[in-house]
Amino acid sequence: MYAGTRVLVTGGLGFIGSNLAIRLVERGALVTIVDSSVPGCGANPFNIAPVKDRVRVIEADISDAAQFEDEIRAADVIFNIAGEISHPESMRYPERDLRLNTVAHLRFLLVCRAAHPGVRIVYASTRQIYGRARYLPVDEEHPANPVDFNGIHKRASTQYHLLLSRLGELDAIVLRLTNVYGPRAALNLPHQGFLSTFIRAALLAQPLTVYGDGSSVRDPIYIDDAVEAFLLAGSARVCQSRVYNVGGPETLPVRALAEAVTAIARNPLVVYTPFPVGRESIDVGAFAASSDRIRRELGWSARTRFCDGIRQTLSYYEKHLNAYLRPVESHLELAAQAV
Amino acid sequence: MYAGTRVLVTGGLGFIGSNLAIRLVERGALVTIVDSSVPGCGANPFNIAPVKDRVRVIEADISDAAQFEDEIRAADVIFNIAGEISHPESMRYPERDLRLNTVAHLRFLLVCRAAHPGVRIVYASTRQIYGRARYLPVDEEHPANPVDFNGIHKRASTQYHLLLSRLGELDAIVLRLTNVYGPRAALNLPHQGFLSTFIRAALLAQPLTVYGDGSSVRDPIYIDDAVEAFLLAGSARVCQSRVYNVGGPETLPVRALAEAVTAIARNPLVVYTPFPVGRESIDVGAFAASSDRIRRELGWSARTRFCDGIRQTLSYYEKHLNAYLRPVESHLELAAQAV
Repeated sequence: MYAGTRVLVTGGLGFIGSNLAIRLVERGALVTIVDSSVPGCGANPFNIAPVKDRVRVIEADISDAAQFEDEIRAADVIFNIAGEISHPESMRYPERDLRLNTVAHLRFLLVCRAAHPGVRIVYASTRQIYGRARYLPVDEEHPANPVDFNGIHKRASTQYHLLLSRLGELDAIVLRLTNVYGPRAALNLPHQGFLSTFIRAALLAQPLTVYGDGSSVRDPIYIDDAVEAFLLAGSARVCQSRVYNVGGPETLPVRALAEAVTAIARNPLVVYTPFPVGRESIDVGAFAASSDRIRRELGWSARTRFCDGIRQTLSYYEKHLNAYLRPVESHLELAAQAV
Repeated sequence: MYAGTRVLVTGGLGFIGSNLAIRLVERGALVTIVDSSVPGCGANPFNIAPVKDRVRVIEADISDAAQFEDEIRAADVIFNIAGEISHPESMRYPERDLRLNTVAHLRFLLVCRAAHPGVRIVYASTRQIYGRARYLPVDEEHPANPVDFNGIHKRASTQYHLLLSRLGELDAIVLRLTNVYGPRAALNLPHQGFLSTFIRAALLAQPLTVYGDGSSVRDPIYIDDAVEAFLLAGSARVCQSRVYNVGGPETLPVRALAEAVTAIARNPLVVYTPFPVGRESIDVGAFAASSDRIRRELGWSARTRFCDGIRQTLSYYEKHLNAYLRPVESHLELAAQAV
């Protein structure tokens, strides 16, 4: 469904963006990636190695969208994936998070609406905007009470997309993703989500660390399933709704997720420790999304069971370990410079 | 209850801030006003004429809070009233609104938490963050789906206050005010709310313009009642909640509000016209707040009936018309410069 389609992917060197870009190329789309490689956000040129001669990469910040206005004008679909995902980093550097997750998106969308009114944009939002679940599974009508700066800022950007769509100036679809895992996530950065931390530990044969007793449930989603949701949202002629939860196929306690990883990796232990200072207060606790709406309206469902997804993930990283475990300069210093 | 108390009022030269500052001085508080007099936000030095020798005025933007860190450290209570209130202007200049209503508040709060951990801050939020009411009256649990940039940005700032309070770094109380009217609102700026427009027209013996058929209800609140809510929120030892609606005592169709103003002003007509292009899409329609929570927890209630409030308002402006109808340089140009 994407053959010959011109597609712009912001954040296309990062985890979700690169997987999406690869799949789009495989389907015959003409893909342009925009990525500023902001330190700490997970951009890695190796991510697009399989398609590097078949995509165009523009090194630019979405804040400076005027630089690639022609590409916005030419795009049939825009996937807006750029952003910072780290919750703890947003607490250390709130202004940096505001700049990356809110200010930049406002500027980007204002250029989009001027350069290409009515263009379809699929935005990568997050379950974080809901905050602590009042009920499970969380549907799209659940109140939004984010528990950290990252959630506040992504909430605001989500609302930008929805406001401009309500006004008829853009045609945005917002996907609220739960914990996404899989190949091409950064493993050399702190605080990219507990699953990346588990996978890194498993690869290094180190113990997996679980905060608290690991009884909170989560519904991780494998990257290929998430990518499929983006493809459907980008190509659906008419969407009844503009906001869709995208959750995983199984809801399991974090403890069980950790044990599944260790079983597949065949050596590391699981260690239970109390939450570090400042971490429990921004933990959302138990979470599982209801993906009924996207199943009903776009025919999407998560297919990859956690065990299978982890197996594929470990197998990818085992082949390309050097590209992902390479130490980066101190993340915190880089992040501070980028404020 | 404020005698001898050190109080900081941001936006203290504006409509709500100046009325609050005057009342605080009358109660014996030691008041410091911070105001940057950003064009378009309603700052008017005449507003504090009655107390001008008894307040200290610091000309500074809350973004640059380091400039008045000592005053933050010394304050027993902070009333954070600074901000842009215009919905249509936020649609014309979204980045300006983001800067004034979100970025500036984040910077301000980060300085507050460092300079004076745990300080009580009362933040002037707005019913705008709720968007279109799904039910009336709107209580504090109503979903927040703002319909314009102003609502999105005030929502984010509200969440900053709540997040930092949940973490124990500040002690913020958020008041969500409905349509506030009364003496000291700017009358020489466009888009400061329909009641300011009505009052200005009445004072100039011009027809009042109502968009649509005026059947949507609203619950305007007189400034003295709003100020009383701030005083209570600033001094309450323990608040069970952190967010309170502050609505008016009567819920009336906009048409009836217009007719009440014309009856009191004794001459202007009411003219009904269709919404201008772009205005209906950001109109929230019928709105009335439930103020049950603040009544129950802080013992506040709105006392001033609309007719009485309008009578006092017109009487104030008739005495001081020159200070409020003085033409300002083009608001839009100034606003654009201030982006």
